[in-house]
Parts: sequence; C-alpha cells; structure tokens
Amino acid sequence: MIVLIHKDSKPEQIKRLIEWLAQFNLQVHISEGKLQTILGLIGDTSKVDVDLVRSMEIVEDVKRIQEPYKNANRKFHAENTVVPVGNTVVGDGGLTLIAGPCSIESEEQVKEVAKAVKASGATMLRGGAFKPRTSPYAFQGMGADGLKLLLAAKAETGLPVVTEIMNVGQLPLFDDVDVIQVGARNMQNFDLLKELGRLRKPVLLKRGLSSTMEELLMSAEYIMAGGNENVILCERGIRTFETYTRNTLDISAVPLLKQLSHLPVIVDPSHATGLSKLVRPLSLAAVAAGVDGLMIEVHNNPACALCDGPQSLTPEAFDVVAKEVRLVHETLRNVRSGG
Amino acid sequence: MIVLIHKDSKPEQIKRLIEWLAQFNLQVHISEGKLQTILGLIGDTSKVDVDLVRSMEIVEDVKRIQEPYKNANRKFHAENTVVPVGNTVVGDGGLTLIAGPCSIESEEQVKEVAKAVKASGATMLRGGAFKPRTSPYAFQGMGADGLKLLLAAKAETGLPVVTEIMNVGQLPLFDDVDVIQVGARNMQNFDLLKELGRLRKPVLLKRGLSSTMEELLMSAEYIMAGGNENVILCERGIRTFETYTRNTLDISAVPLLKQLSHLPVIVDPSHATGLSKLVRPLSLAAVAAGVDGLMIEVHNNPACALCDGPQSLTPEAFDVVAKEVRLVHETLRNVRSGG
Amino acid sequence: MIVLIHKDSKPEQIKRLIEWLAQFNLQVHISEGKLQTILGLIGDTSKVDVDLVRSMEIVEDVKRIQEPYKNANRKFHAENTVVPVGNTVVGDGGLTLIAGPCSIESEEQVKEVAKAVKASGATMLRGGAFKPRTSPYAFQGMGADGLKLLLAAKAETGLPVVTEIMNVGQLPLFDDVDVIQVGARNMQNFDLLKELGRLRKPVLLKRGLSSTMEELLMSAEYIMAGGNENVILCERGIRTFETYTRNTLDISAVPLLKQLSHLPVIVDPSHATGLSKLVRPLSLAAVAAGVDGLMIEVHNNPACALCDGPQSLTPEAFDVVAKEVRLVHETLRNVRSGG
Amino acid sequence: MIVLIHKDSKPEQIKRLIEWLAQFNLQVHISEGKLQTILGLIGDTSKVDVDLVRSMEIVEDVKRIQEPYKNANRKFHAENTVVPVGNTVVGDGGLTLIAGPCSIESEEQVKEVAKAVKASGATMLRGGAFKPRTSPYAFQGMGADGLKLLLAAKAETGLPVVTEIMNVGQLPLFDDVDVIQVGARNMQNFDLLKELGRLRKPVLLKRGLSSTMEELLMSAEYIMAGGNENVILCERGIRTFETYTRNTLDISAVPLLKQLSHLPVIVDPSHATGLSKLVRPLSLAAVAAGVDGLMIEVHNNPACALCDGPQSLTPEAFDVVAKEVRLVHETLRNVRSGG
Repeated sequence: MIVLIHKDSKPEQIKRLIEWLAQFNLQVHISEGKLQTILGLIGDTSKVDVDLVRSMEIVEDVKRIQEPYKNANRKFHAENTVVPVGNTVVGDGGLTLIAGPCSIESEEQVKEVAKAVKASGATMLRGGAFKPRTSPYAFQGMGADGLKLLLAAKAETGLPVVTEIMNVGQLPLFDDVDVIQVGARNMQNFDLLKELGRLRKPVLLKRGLSSTMEELLMSAEYIMAGGNENVILCERGIRTFETYTRNTLDISAVPLLKQLSHLPVIVDPSHATGLSKLVRPLSLAAVAAGVDGLMIEVHNNPACALCDGPQSLTPEAFDVVAKEVRLVHETLRNVRSGG
Repeated sequence: MIVLIHKDSKPEQIKRLIEWLAQFNLQVHISEGKLQTILGLIGDTSKVDVDLVRSMEIVEDVKRIQEPYKNANRKFHAENTVVPVGNTVVGDGGLTLIAGPCSIESEEQVKEVAKAVKASGATMLRGGAFKPRTSPYAFQGMGADGLKLLLAAKAETGLPVVTEIMNVGQLPLFDDVDVIQVGARNMQNFDLLKELGRLRKPVLLKRGLSSTMEELLMSAEYIMAGGNENVILCERGIRTFETYTRNTLDISAVPLLKQLSHLPVIVDPSHATGLSKLVRPLSLAAVAAGVDGLMIEVHNNPACALCDGPQSLTPEAFDVVAKEVRLVHETLRNVRSGG
Repeated sequence: MIVLIHKDSKPEQIKRLIEWLAQFNLQVHISEGKLQTILGLIGDTSKVDVDLVRSMEIVEDVKRIQEPYKNANRKFHAENTVVPVGNTVVGDGGLTLIAGPCSIESEEQVKEVAKAVKASGATMLRGGAFKPRTSPYAFQGMGADGLKLLLAAKAETGLPVVTEIMNVGQLPLFDDVDVIQVGARNMQNFDLLKELGRLRKPVLLKRGLSSTMEELLMSAEYIMAGGNENVILCERGIRTFETYTRNTLDISAVPLLKQLSHLPVIVDPSHATGLSKLVRPLSLAAVAAGVDGLMIEVHNNPACALCDGPQSLTPEAFDVVAKEVRLVHETLRNVRSGG
Repeated sequence: MIVLIHKDSKPEQIKRLIEWLAQFNLQVHISEGKLQTILGLIGDTSKVDVDLVRSMEIVEDVKRIQEPYKNANRKFHAENTVVPVGNTVVGDGGLTLIAGPCSIESEEQVKEVAKAVKASGATMLRGGAFKPRTSPYAFQGMGADGLKLLLAAKAETGLPVVTEIMNVGQLPLFDDVDVIQVGARNMQNFDLLKELGRLRKPVLLKRGLSSTMEELLMSAEYIMAGGNENVILCERGIRTFETYTRNTLDISAVPLLKQLSHLPVIVDPSHATGLSKLVRPLSLAAVAAGVDGLMIEVHNNPACALCDGPQSLTPEAFDVVAKEVRLVHETLRNVRSGG
C-alpha cells in the first residue's frame, strides 16, 4: 500500500501516522521528495481500512498494491478450490452444467425439464422459487411451494439443486437445497453474506450488475471470513451503455477471476444478454475461456404458447449446446495434456 | 405499449394474444404491414408484465410508451407530495437540510455535530449506525448502540433523525427514527421494500449505483404499492467510467424525477463524489436544479487527527454551504414568484 | 417506425405530418386512443431522419423498429460478405489470423515478427506506423518510414498488410497497403469514412470505445454508402466501470453483429484488455463465439529487456494460441457439418 | 510515479531500469520488501511514457501520482487563463453566454436568432455549418455556405462566432471565425489537435462521450504543447447506462476541471441531455457549480412547424434562462466578495 502525504504535513504528524500503522505489523518505507512524501507499506495490508487512511488529514491519496481480499486470493491459496455438491463437484477441471427453468411454475414443468436436461448431461438442476422482479406488479415466484416442487424433482432425478435466496428469513426453507444462490442484486447485501458465512453449504455468488471483479471477490471474502469456503463465483453480465443486449457479458472476468482467486467460476449466459439466440455462442465462448461450469435456463411448456422465455432454451436446443460445449472442453483439455 | 409481431405469425396466434390481453381492459389497435404487424395497446398498461409478453413466441419486441409505475407517476397525481417529518416537512417548496456524521462514533461526537448543524440551519439530523462496507474487515458501524446515541441527540436538539436500515430484522429498533433510509445497495432489496410499504413512516430511498431513474421509481412503487406514500427520492451518484470521482452525480435526475414523479427529490453531494472539496459546488448545483433538500456529511472530531472523512465537511464549512444554498434557493424562488 | 403524437395535437397538424411522410413511400397506420395517438410507419424507413421527426412539435417520441442501416443489414443481404485481401479472403467461414507488432520499430523487428507469425499460420501482417496516443509526449509512431518497413516485410513474406490511417491526407501513402484500419477513436470521423467509401480497398473498422453496435454498423454504412462494400468489423473492447482491464471485450457483439450484418467480424483480444495474459483465453472465446478472424499483437525484441509490450505475445506464445484457436475452429466446423 | 517491481526480478535488471530513468532527471527512491520492491519517482514525470514503463518485463504495475499534463495543469500555472475572444473574454470571472442554432439553415434564421440572443445578453453566437451525424443519410450541414451566413450574422450583430471544424482541410474557411470548436467525436483526433496547436485562435474543446477528465486535459495539452494556450474546456455530457437522457451531464467536472486546470470551463446543457425541458435547470446548476460560461441552442422558425429542435430553446425561453443564470451568478459573486 502506498500512502501519499500532503506536502505541507508536519514531521510529527507523519510520525504519529507511522506509529498508528505499527498495529498492522507492516514495514513502512519513507520516500521524501520535494513535491511529495510517500510511505510504502509492505506486508499483509488486507486488514487496513483504506477509507480510514484516506480520510486522514495529512493523506493526499492511498493506492493499494496488494488485493484487499485474503481468503479468496490465489496468492495465499495456490490450489483450485473444489466445491462438493451432492454427488458431484465444481472446480476440479470438469465442466459443470446447471440447467432448469427460470421460474418454477408447476410440478409437471420442473420434473419434465429436470429429466430432459439430465438426459442431455446436466449435473445440477436450477429453478427459481423466489424471484426478484423490478416491478411490484410482476410475478414474484411460487415461493415456498415452488421450493417443494424443486425438491421433488431432485428426489426424482437425483440432480442436486441450486436456487436463489432473497433474505435471511428464508434460510430454514433451504435445508435440502444443495447450493444457495445469491442474486446479482444481493451481491452486496452484507448481512445476508455474513449469515451464509456461518453455514458450510455451497453458495453460488452472482456478480452485481455494476460490481467490479474486486467487489465480487470482497463479497466472497465476507462469506469466507465466516468460515464457509464453498463459494462459487458467477459472471452474469454487467451494465454498460450498450442497449442491444440487456447486459454485457464480461468474458475477461473468467480468466481473470481464475487468476486472482482459487474459487470456481461459472457463467450464466442466459441472464447475461436476455437473448436465447446468444446462449449457444456465449456458452461456447465461456468454456473456451476456461470456465468451470455454465448455468443455463431451459424451459419446456408445449401446452402454453405464451411461455417461451426470451432467454430460455428448449430442451432440444440445450441438448445441442451441451454437446458442443463438452466437445470444446474436451478438445482443449486433451491438447493441453498432450493427449 | 407497442407489440411487434413476428412476420411469420399465424392469424389465430395473434387472435389468441389479443384475447389474452383483454383481461387488462386495454384498447388494441392492429396495424398490418407487409414486413411487420404491430399491436398498439392503449390504456393503463402498468400491470402488464412486459417480460412475459416479450417472451411470447409470436412477439418480436415490446416497446413501452407509458411508464410502468403508477403510484409514483405525476401523470396520475399532479400535486407535489409533501412528506411530514417530525416538526418539519419535505417537498413543500422549502429547502430541507439534512446533516450529520457518516458514522456515529460517540455520544459527544453526534451531539456536538447535531448542535452545530442545527445552528447552521439544518432541519434534520443524519448518522449511520449500521454501515454497509465493501470489506468484511472494515468498521461496520456501532449498530444498536449507535442508534441510541442518535436518538439521544434527537432528544437534545429536537431535530428529526434519518438513518439507514440494513435488513428487515432491524425494524423494531427504528420505532423512534423519523425517516428510514434505504441505501443504494438495497434499492432493489425487494423484500425490504415490501416490508417498508406496510409502514406509514417516511422512507428515504437512495438510487442504486447502476440503477436507471425508472428503476428508482419502480422501487418507490414497491413501497407505495403497500400503501406507504411517504417516499423521498435521493440521487447520490451513479457508476460510470470516470475514475476521478467515486461516482458521477447525475444532476439531470433532479429535474427529471420532479417531472416524472410527484415525490420529493433530494441530493447527497457527499457520497456522490467522495470528495469534500466538491460538496459546496454540487450542493449549489443541486439547489439551482430544483432539489427539495440536501443530505450532507458533517464531521467534527478535533481530538482525533485521523478522522476528517474525505467526503465530510467541518461544521464551519457546512455553515458556509448552508448560507449559500439558502441564498440561491430564495433568489430563484423570489424571481419566479415575481418577488 | 412508431411515432407517438402528443395528446393535445390538432387533426390538421397530424394530417400535415402524414403528408410530409408521403415522400418516403411508407404505409402509415393510425391508432387513436384516449391517452395517445400512434402512427405506425411501415416500409423502408432507413432514410427518415429520426431526430428531425422527433423534433416536430406534435411528436412526443419516435421508436425505431427497423434498423437505420441498409447496406450493412443482413435482412437485405442474406449471404455472408467475403472480403478479398491479397492472396486470401476474410469471411468465407475460415479463420483469418492477423498478427504483428503494435508499433513498427525497425526493419529487423518487423521482418522477424512477420516471418515468425507466418510460420505459425498467420495470414496477414499488422503493424502501426501512425500511432494515436493520449499524450502528446508519447511516441507517435515512425510514420511514413514505418510504413515502408511494413511494406518491405510484406514483400519478403508475401503476407498482406493492415495498418491504421489517422487522416485523409495520409491516403497516398496507403497505395500498397492491403487493408486500411480505422481506429476506435476515428470510428465516427465521418469525413474520413466518406473518403474511404470512395475506394474499393478493404477497410477494417474498429468499434469505438463507447459506441453501440448500431453506431458501428452506421459507420460501416457511411463507407458502404460510398460504394465500398469491403468492410471488416472489429470488436476491440468497450469502456465500462471495470478498472481491472483497460476495456471490456463485448463478446456478445460477435454473434450479434453476425446476425445483424453480413459483414465479416473479427476480434482484437490484445487491445480489448491490455493484458497479454488474457490474449489466449479471449482468442479462444472469440473463435468459439463464431468470429471470422483475430488480430493479435506479437512482439519480439530479445535485445531489449524494456520492450515486451504489456498486451503483446511473444512469437512462441502466439504459436500456441494459433494452434489452439485453429483446433477449436475446426472442431466446431466439423461437428456442425456432421463431420 | 510509483513503479512496482515483480518480486522475481534480478538486481541488475532493477539497476538497468534506474539507469534508464536517469534521463528524466527524477529522484528514484527504492523500497525493498519481502513481497514487493517499489520505486518512487519524484520530480516532473509528465514526459515519462507510462505505457512503455508498464510494458517492461520487470514491472508489475505503474501508478501515477502526478498528473500527466503540464501546460494545462493549475499546479504549474496558478492564475486563471483568460481567453480573449473578439470584443469579449472567457474566464475572467464573468459569465459567457454562447447561443445560436444547432444547424445553420438560412440567412434569415441565423440573423434573427443572433439578434434575439444578443438582446437577451448572449456574448457569442454559435451555429453549425459542418455537422457530424451518425447516419450518412441525415442532413450533414450547409458547409461552406453555412459558414458565410454565420459570418454575415457576426457582421450584423457584432457577436463573435464559434463553429465546429470537422477536419484539417477546412481550416482556410475558418479565418474569420473567432473560436474553433472541436466536437466530442474529434476530442482524440490528435492530428487535428496538433494543427490547432499551431494557431493562436481560441479553441473550444468538447469532452468526448466516454473520455475521462484526464483525457480531456491531455487533449488540451496537445493543443497547448504546440503553443496555443487559448483553450476553453467544454463539458457536454458523458455516456452512461441511463437511457432517459441522451447523455449524462457530469456536473462534478465543472469544479474539478477548475481545480485541476487554469483553463476556462463551460457547459453545453443542450447536448448534455438532448431534452430542451432540462436546459433551464441544468444551466442554473452549471452556473451555481462555478462555470465560466454556457453554450445553449436557440432556434426560431415560426414558419415551419417541423423544426423546433428537441434540445433547442425558443428565443423567449432563452431570455428567461439568461436572466436567471445571470441572477444566480451575481448573487454568488456578491456573497463571496462580501458584497
């Protein structure tokens, strides 16, 4: 950490600051120049409150060198974290395929989709029971009843399930859920993150619409600081000026998050753009970029002409995507292992 | 609402869609062209789920004409909403000045600041007890103890208080709080908004870092749909590519929100940029643009050289700002009333 | 095109507008409602000046349904455009690999890199002679001398060359250049685009840092409207709030531009993030997403420890990338052709 | 400037880097730590090419402390620059009002508007002859003929004129133009900036849609490095995710640019949002924030019902804005001078 000192600061002020810094066990190097005095803090600075230091009267600016996260940092944990989920794992070099409907609508719907995606190679089932919706007049999900239908589909297919939590009060309903999803809008709901840190159940943490990668890792750090290391990061598109797509998939986040952190990284190509016709190319792109898994919306409701979600694939389309992404995944795996 | 129909759609599909739309009591006009058939839906479309319509097989796109919010919409409520807060009001054409420390740190601090800002003309006291922090290692606020100190300062000065809530579970602690603040990161915490809709206590709703004005108004709609009409909107900066300031104050939001909605609009110039040296010019700009109030961070801790927040004013600096903003406010009021 | 009429407009005003619209040979459908009258314009609206219509007194808003570009639009030109470049082509389903140094520095450098990338399978050579630099104090490129060195490398290797033009006055120097590159900062230098429209030489048009896909296609339209149909689109990252990468590669632009337009689409993974360690995964992602080619910076200067560009690959690293992207390209090609 | 050295670098590599840095006459301070070695460069670093340093093999990252611009920097030029323009000046503490039509359409139009805005207190006339348009099919301006009409209006009213240049070739036509405007899309047209640096005529430099304040100041530096110090900076809205307004006026840029630079700063509230109904509040906000001037579109064409530009004021509306902004300007001037 680099601390730039205002040029008019008095020596005793600088001395007091250095004494205060002593509590963090850091080496402090001073560079005095005519225009600027600089303190270089060397050591583990992750617990120094940058905002507090920046707020000090004699400080002009603070620049971090080290990342402010530690548990999530690959520098302190070189091995990939492998998250066990039911009868499968995420992050071991294989390709996790999570699929299912956006919203759970009926027992028939969720079971049918579950069977179809399992047949196509999905290793986990997704489905929304509690839905965050921009409008109070839009369908808010089936709630606890929807959760029961999801668990029934789990029982029937053996697929572990992932579903979104909206608030801490819902936790008792999630006992049999395999992975708890934190949605993009809750990525900085710190009270919820702290509570999930007390569990040992895997958490799928979605990146917020306008959150930097560092903020995503800091939110993972909230969960891990509580002792829960089973965190799966999920890139699902960020908000930009482009209006053609609902969000902009930040594909660079895949290799970067893998480099910065040891946690598994998955991509949600369905929400990233809101356009089902882009799910196939973006799924392939994510796998080629090195993702540990994909979470894809699949819908099947032939009885209802109204319900083909604009971002959902049919089971048939999912089957094609699943084949192609596995092929690309294996091709790259083979060439890299010299196979 | 305009619904664009895929050119290959069959007449019976279009007929079925029109029948389905009948439930919303809308007039439906059909324009058939060679390249495109268009449905124009005329009437109150705020309860039509756009995502659902867009997801229909025969629909190419949907374009809203009317705003999707109703309770917050000035079209259906021409008069300004005036929110009563303790012994004062927000939104009656006067200028509300909310001031106080970012975080509550001690009884002495909060009382001293409260007295100082009251003397300078503040009409409400702010202070954070529960602090949302990006890092789990940063100071998270004094919590319930901080809230008590804030209420003690209220008792001593008579100033109504505004403070941030982080989750529904904290509500019992907020009985004597005059205005409940929803922070930018919780603007789309829909479960919290629904709960606040059940109260009749004023809610100060901050715009999310990457939320559009329409999304802000939809979040206000969540609260109002529950019956609580005492909502104060707050612009506090949005996230852009500019890195010099922490956020970019969207000053256009002030006149636009006033035109789109009847709710009072305030600006938080302290968080908007994170730079105390910009608080004065941005406060003046906000008042000139027609804001109903300002929320400004003021800090006073002469005993501690470490604590002059980078975005906080001293009481003396606040005094200057308060004088100048009142002067501009009165000048414009006089010239417009022909005074 | 949908035109929303102000509700207070008089019938004769609407009549006059409809008469004015007659010049464009459009069908006009009127939907009159209590709250809103709507005109639906059906036909080729690409030559209607939306800003002008929006500016009319009786018009509340205009919403485009059809795209405002025609020559670049796949709807009017279903077949892929294949751009001939020297002894090769871009856009025929193959994978174009353009490689070379960011800046041309010396004859030895450019020839050595050219030979290396050719050996690795590159089909075109890139190299900057005129460099757009943010600072007037930074190296601005070798200029005309650099161009000569690039052409010497072309003569020696037989690789066609692509290099950036900065202004119309430089055109005479570009006679032997195979593809003229328009940089991101010049994407809306309309006078330059018009001039390039008079040529028949291929133009590689880079997307501006904050340009939408539609704006990119409108800039292509400028060139094509002049009669030059040899336009290659290039996605090279857009500006967002994320600070870890210099820009954010908009990978969705690849399949979307291919769907919206018949022009070839390539990706520049080097400039997209400014980080050489991301070039491999992003190149793979782009190919998996369906790109027609890649443009990659390769640098080789073992004599100088100072010059390994932060976004450049060594020839050895490029060789690995070239192998892997070709493998993924062929794998997907085979599976789709049933091979 | 802070240079972070890779931890595996060899002492002789670091030594060679320090020798190379010697050419810039900087003091170099070394801080060696277990995890990180840091070089602090103290002195005038504006001529160090950061990208080049960052590209060096042993460098992990470079962080600037000093601004990369010098001529435009207030640190090296404390006094406000006052730009003389015809019979008036910009930047002396007064309020410059530039008004006129977006596009020049006829002699009658431009003269009528010129007289009207002069009567309302405008001190400069604006009008576009060469228009940058996103679509090749939209009206591109009257060109040289339009320029003549503008100069005729100057002759008649005595108002100095400002108009936009699109390329270097047009310069001979600008002899009698008082201020040459560089549009947002040309802010990084470096060849054009260099050419304008050779003149001594004032240049009004608009901030690019996605340019940071630092980039704007670097573009000013291009002009000033050539010897032309008569640069006026113009904030005109940046591109963000918000879709309600065409752009987002970055009001913080006003006080910040005034602090960072000694150059005059004006605001264009018309282009900032594209909505005429916001011109009044944003003009007032800009003046309250400390701007040196405003550039406002005014249109007058009673004969043509089609032409009321969506972002233009009528002369009557401009008259009201001019009165109110002068009032706010004087009020703040008086209170600050103790008047």
